[in-house]
Amino acid sequence: MSFIDPIELDRIVEMALQEDMPAGDVTTDSLVPPHVRASASFVPRKSGVIAGIGVARAVFGKVDESLDFTAHVADGDAVQGGETVATISGSMASILRAERIALNFMQRMSGIATMTAQFVAAVEGTNTAILDTRKTVPGLRSLDKAAVAAGGGRNHRRDLSDGVLIKDNHIAAMQAEGLNLQQIVEQARAAAPPAMKIEIEVETLEAVQEALAGEPDIIMLDNMSLDDMRRAADLCRGKCLTEASGNVTLETVRGIAKTGVDLISVGALTHSVHALDIGLDYND
Amino acid sequence: MSFIDPIELDRIVEMALQEDMPAGDVTTDSLVPPHVRASASFVPRKSGVIAGIGVARAVFGKVDESLDFTAHVADGDAVQGGETVATISGSMASILRAERIALNFMQRMSGIATMTAQFVAAVEGTNTAILDTRKTVPGLRSLDKAAVAAGGGRNHRRDLSDGVLIKDNHIAAMQAEGLNLQQIVEQARAAAPPAMKIEIEVETLEAVQEALAGEPDIIMLDNMSLDDMRRAADLCRGKCLTEASGNVTLETVRGIAKTGVDLISVGALTHSVHALDIGLDYND
Amino acid sequence: MSFIDPIELDRIVEMALQEDMPAGDVTTDSLVPPHVRASASFVPRKSGVIAGIGVARAVFGKVDESLDFTAHVADGDAVQGGETVATISGSMASILRAERIALNFMQRMSGIATMTAQFVAAVEGTNTAILDTRKTVPGLRSLDKAAVAAGGGRNHRRDLSDGVLIKDNHIAAMQAEGLNLQQIVEQARAAAPPAMKIEIEVETLEAVQEALAGEPDIIMLDNMSLDDMRRAADLCRGKCLTEASGNVTLETVRGIAKTGVDLISVGALTHSVHALDIGLDYND
Amino acid sequence: MSFIDPIELDRIVEMALQEDMPAGDVTTDSLVPPHVRASASFVPRKSGVIAGIGVARAVFGKVDESLDFTAHVADGDAVQGGETVATISGSMASILRAERIALNFMQRMSGIATMTAQFVAAVEGTNTAILDTRKTVPGLRSLDKAAVAAGGGRNHRRDLSDGVLIKDNHIAAMQAEGLNLQQIVEQARAAAPPAMKIEIEVETLEAVQEALAGEPDIIMLDNMSLDDMRRAADLCRGKCLTEASGNVTLETVRGIAKTGVDLISVGALTHSVHALDIGLDYND
Amino acid sequence: MSFIDPIELDRIVEMALQEDMPAGDVTTDSLVPPHVRASASFVPRKSGVIAGIGVARAVFGKVDESLDFTAHVADGDAVQGGETVATISGSMASILRAERIALNFMQRMSGIATMTAQFVAAVEGTNTAILDTRKTVPGLRSLDKAAVAAGGGRNHRRDLSDGVLIKDNHIAAMQAEGLNLQQIVEQARAAAPPAMKIEIEVETLEAVQEALAGEPDIIMLDNMSLDDMRRAADLCRGKCLTEASGNVTLETVRGIAKTGVDLISVGALTHSVHALDIGLDYND
Amino acid sequence: MSFIDPIELDRIVEMALQEDMPAGDVTTDSLVPPHVRASASFVPRKSGVIAGIGVARAVFGKVDESLDFTAHVADGDAVQGGETVATISGSMASILRAERIALNFMQRMSGIATMTAQFVAAVEGTNTAILDTRKTVPGLRSLDKAAVAAGGGRNHRRDLSDGVLIKDNHIAAMQAEGLNLQQIVEQARAAAPPAMKIEIEVETLEAVQEALAGEPDIIMLDNMSLDDMRRAADLCRGKCLTEASGNVTLETVRGIAKTGVDLISVGALTHSVHALDIGLDYND
Repeated sequence: MSFIDPIELDRIVEMALQEDMPAGDVTTDSLVPPHVRASASFVPRKSGVIAGIGVARAVFGKVDESLDFTAHVADGDAVQGGETVATISGSMASILRAERIALNFMQRMSGIATMTAQFVAAVEGTNTAILDTRKTVPGLRSLDKAAVAAGGGRNHRRDLSDGVLIKDNHIAAMQAEGLNLQQIVEQARAAAPPAMKIEIEVETLEAVQEALAGEPDIIMLDNMSLDDMRRAADLCRGKCLTEASGNVTLETVRGIAKTGVDLISVGALTHSVHALDIGLDYND
Repeated sequence: MSFIDPIELDRIVEMALQEDMPAGDVTTDSLVPPHVRASASFVPRKSGVIAGIGVARAVFGKVDESLDFTAHVADGDAVQGGETVATISGSMASILRAERIALNFMQRMSGIATMTAQFVAAVEGTNTAILDTRKTVPGLRSLDKAAVAAGGGRNHRRDLSDGVLIKDNHIAAMQAEGLNLQQIVEQARAAAPPAMKIEIEVETLEAVQEALAGEPDIIMLDNMSLDDMRRAADLCRGKCLTEASGNVTLETVRGIAKTGVDLISVGALTHSVHALDIGLDYND
Repeated sequence: MSFIDPIELDRIVEMALQEDMPAGDVTTDSLVPPHVRASASFVPRKSGVIAGIGVARAVFGKVDESLDFTAHVADGDAVQGGETVATISGSMASILRAERIALNFMQRMSGIATMTAQFVAAVEGTNTAILDTRKTVPGLRSLDKAAVAAGGGRNHRRDLSDGVLIKDNHIAAMQAEGLNLQQIVEQARAAAPPAMKIEIEVETLEAVQEALAGEPDIIMLDNMSLDDMRRAADLCRGKCLTEASGNVTLETVRGIAKTGVDLISVGALTHSVHALDIGLDYND
Repeated sequence: MSFIDPIELDRIVEMALQEDMPAGDVTTDSLVPPHVRASASFVPRKSGVIAGIGVARAVFGKVDESLDFTAHVADGDAVQGGETVATISGSMASILRAERIALNFMQRMSGIATMTAQFVAAVEGTNTAILDTRKTVPGLRSLDKAAVAAGGGRNHRRDLSDGVLIKDNHIAAMQAEGLNLQQIVEQARAAAPPAMKIEIEVETLEAVQEALAGEPDIIMLDNMSLDDMRRAADLCRGKCLTEASGNVTLETVRGIAKTGVDLISVGALTHSVHALDIGLDYND
Repeated sequence: MSFIDPIELDRIVEMALQEDMPAGDVTTDSLVPPHVRASASFVPRKSGVIAGIGVARAVFGKVDESLDFTAHVADGDAVQGGETVATISGSMASILRAERIALNFMQRMSGIATMTAQFVAAVEGTNTAILDTRKTVPGLRSLDKAAVAAGGGRNHRRDLSDGVLIKDNHIAAMQAEGLNLQQIVEQARAAAPPAMKIEIEVETLEAVQEALAGEPDIIMLDNMSLDDMRRAADLCRGKCLTEASGNVTLETVRGIAKTGVDLISVGALTHSVHALDIGLDYND
Repeated sequence: MSFIDPIELDRIVEMALQEDMPAGDVTTDSLVPPHVRASASFVPRKSGVIAGIGVARAVFGKVDESLDFTAHVADGDAVQGGETVATISGSMASILRAERIALNFMQRMSGIATMTAQFVAAVEGTNTAILDTRKTVPGLRSLDKAAVAAGGGRNHRRDLSDGVLIKDNHIAAMQAEGLNLQQIVEQARAAAPPAMKIEIEVETLEAVQEALAGEPDIIMLDNMSLDDMRRAADLCRGKCLTEASGNVTLETVRGIAKTGVDLISVGALTHSVHALDIGLDYND
């Protein structure tokens, strides 16, 4: 599932084009006559998982609705370096105006999808899902999350408004008021919308037990040892979901998954993106 | 020079907060009473160059203007892991609402500044400047470019509207019309605003010579060998600036600088950012 | 909990003032000199529950930040007809420009809060909560939901993006694909973000049992008889929450609550608002 | 006449959809495959006057321009409960995403039109018109006013910028400066644009006479007795229009009309809307 | 009366600054250190009527709220060349960033006010008012109209939504349907909001008489001879206002006013503005 | 080259229509039935150079996409009074709603193009180009600049962000810091993006020589005598461009061009526009 809301997509694409072309493309406007036509292919230089096909389509369509954009793969498809993933044809001037922005989107999103797919592959065979976080690029969260989904990851809560996640500092503030973890969970459930899940972050096994008494929906295990995570997963099974969190890497993720946690969230999926190198090759 | 326009900054910060908090922070709203106060410190976990101090300040100020944000370093300062770069104090609920967005900005910008500073250090002692490109994150170009400047890099043209850069595909289109490189440069100069520089991209020494006849302001040497770049730099010296471009890495950049080119542009500065790990530590 | 996001509040207030005053207040501009000062009191003509104090404050502040707005009650307070709930003083011209918009907001929100409080009072002593729905006025959902909270109600999911609610037509579409209710719930859980609750709407006891097998978080009982609701509540207790829905009125709500359902959602709270009559009385 | 400006309509519809679907419809996205098609009918549960057909059409068109929306009645048509007023067909997923917002608009607007038609029917045979007021829902004034027109009412001034209405508090401020009603009207006429009508609110017959000397275009009779209104209407006939105002109800409106006033304004048309219950029935 | 709505003013000023400074002022940012302070005076090079003082103040305040802007005259004041009308002091860099935009606004608005004052002076001693039209610069109508008011002119209807003006082409369309001028006026009055005046444009005396039978509020006399205008003014006196229109110049305006028409509208006030030359002189 | 960015054009046209028609065209809505069709011709009353054809097309298209707009000339074409430049046909009501805004744009832009063409003609046979300035109408700079291009002029830097222009006050500030003109140019070049030209304004021949030592790209000669301009042009030839500036008129421009300067910038092209009188004649 990698749905991007069309109104949101339109807003993002318009913002990107206004940023890059506040007063036209002076080079192309000066040189390339309107009658020149061209066609070009999007070709990754390395293997990876593609995301952002729909965004690229929207960029070209916004610049010139007469351009013809054809996708040869879909978001989430794994491709080899050298494989054509999409083609664009029509007015060369229009393609030149739009190409950098289309590539900026597609390279970032494919970079996210590719890294996500690596994490998902690393936990293959376990029952653990890979999740994103709110460590996304401001303004592009929809795209970052769609790219994670394209790579086979699942999405965490979208924003501060749509899910309760009680973190260490919330807990510290409430403990100073004299509440224990059970009471904190109970207070959150009493105050938050009943259709919303309650998640709480803990760092020790004792805290897991104290929190469990409040019947949270999810317990986040922050930077715990593999042994402790395993015990925590056992304690919680059938009662609530468990989520492992904290500097998870491709090297450590499988070990964590094997502890039996339900979810592993990985901030690096979106905060440290390595763009997938995709070229736009003009056909002669 | 790392100026961010205040109206643009306000737009970006508002966009980021609306994205993350369309309907409040349900966790904090449910738990943390308004009278609780806190103070917390921004502490990088590793050494790096800081950027985004002003953006973080704007985020906290937008969420709650009574918060007190104090910077201990300025954009562009190199810091060690563990060093406090800024502190925030005031209503704990407000800090909790704003902290993730402030960190998202500061970690990305500091990541860019840190990598830029590494490239700048690598060419130390030469006369070559490190430049960014248009491979920025859509919507955040102002911040990406300010972060490059904080790292000691210099900014290339901002967008398609404010500089002429004749790339391979423009050239192909014009050659199909029968023009050579000299004529292409001349046509661009005749058509573009006279206060704008004309830059042209070439891939061979022959092309350098052909382009030079048109008296461009800058010649971009795309993916040329070190030897060819050296000869090109010699040919152009006193006539126009030279810019090296194409998959430049920390390993290759010093060799390129030593060819005598004036400028080296590095896309990876902004398209593949490794966020600087910065924590927000609450003080007891 | 009746939090309104300040950026959202600012957007709404600005929209309302631009709508009512695209080019100034021609009457006041023509007549009332700037030196005239006035003070006036907000006085409900009937008893009710007040909501929208903060919105009224924002309206006056946006029109003229030198106005002095003092609240004598808080959102959620029950007041008698004739009681002063707030006063405004300062430039008379500014008060005249802003008063209608401030009243429009406060009368609607207080109308919602008052009706909500009546529903909440009607179920007093039971364990059932009163919920709002998405049947709000387009553009003002934040305010409508804050007003429900002020009246003692609780908020349902905010929008289509932040909660799964499988309605009759979703079910029909999936049954046509050959899935039963258990499978539908399971598919939703597999596809939606793990931190999101899964709710499903049913109309018969058989459907309750079929759905329960999928382990949903909430079952919505749509237009069921009191007997069936009671049996459904018994079946679900300890397994998932139950929510009654469908043309609930002040006359029927207590009977429904006594069936043991956890939640009752009432569309009329926001779709058919009877504004609380509040006057603005100028002091001599 | 029930014209809604297309740019304004587009703004409103987009605002409503962004509010309800900031990040897609997670239920539909999780469950309903794109190939499923459906058709559904808008059917009022009770008789009433329909308004908002064009708004519903715009909502569906914005969500998915391939949907087919067919209206069977026009704004202003009276319908019976059970009668199909419009049908929508196409992608079921798209219909599910848009239906609630389309209904929210149509139910509110039809509620307004229905109540307006009741007032208009109550004064049938007199020469008195029913008018709306500025007591509309912030952000939706265009739609509220179009709905009044659909119900057979007429529109009062749209906002503070496009008509002079001198109310009791304007008068109090000017009397404190030593002006009488005649002089206040004259000052307003001298200051306001000449193409704008001047209306003044009075509460007594004496005030009617004093104001008449200033030759206003309309005199508003606020909360006057039927006898006084009759005398005021007689005094003003041929000189200016008269408008009755103040807590007008369906019970009192005909008596007021029979006094001979030209206009009766009714705030409740828009500030206390009872939504017309309209269902969307899917066809098998 | 020269009121500019503060929300509208804010929108316009922000738009202008974003247009001129999308990414800072590269010259000032490169050269002028923040500690340099300056003060400068706005000095018209020729005599004229000043308008736009409040707009200039808003421009400087938006760029840097610590700047000190002091007005020595008010909108509508006539000044001599060489007279200081306002001073600005504070950070030189901020003044340099804002000065051109402040001048662009003030020069245009003062040009409009100056020309308007010349027309108003030309009709001195008559009972005729000078009016503006809708021939304003798109996006700046509020400012253009405020400048006309500052020059002593009066404002016509603001836009198509707030006044009925039946022009030749409306008439042609209705005559083709078989209506005469009386009937056209009557239909407009029946359809338009009752609080709105009805104006109709005519070109002959016969048309004046035919239109008068419909009891319009204003008759516009388009391009009629002075004799015909005089007769028309006589015919209409006591029945409706008359407005002369059509290529009115400073040479012809007094003769037109002497025909006894109530209003003269002049498109050139805003469509062909000669900017008042105002300099910003830095003090040593 | 007279390119207007389509997203920018859309923004401007929407802004203009919202300003003129916030709630429909009450006259046309009241009178003209939808079935009436019309066709009309745009006919200049005097000879001139046309600009704004594309803007007019966009205005009509935004109001009613079924209108048929046909251009008979292109931007930049010189036409005679009485010549039809474009025709519009379709729904008469739609044409009436849009005509004034379309004319407002086209008359202003054609006024700019016509005056520019007069300046360009006056320097015919020299090597000097006519340039615009930043003295444009706030919000419409794109259109003002496109109109200058249509008239044969060339565009100066667009805004403060895309070119360095060191003016007298920048110089004064830097001289107070102890720098001479050469050093000021060098500092600007060191700080500004390398792809940007450096221009400096001088008033004397001595200053030309001092500045030249810093190797600027352009020297602006402000209000210098013809003799001094000639000497300055001789000094700079082959080293940098020269630009004459300061109250240039149609009478003085040819003399200035003959001094050999490369560029002449003329503020009056856009700050004091005389609209070209264009009528819209309905065809019977």
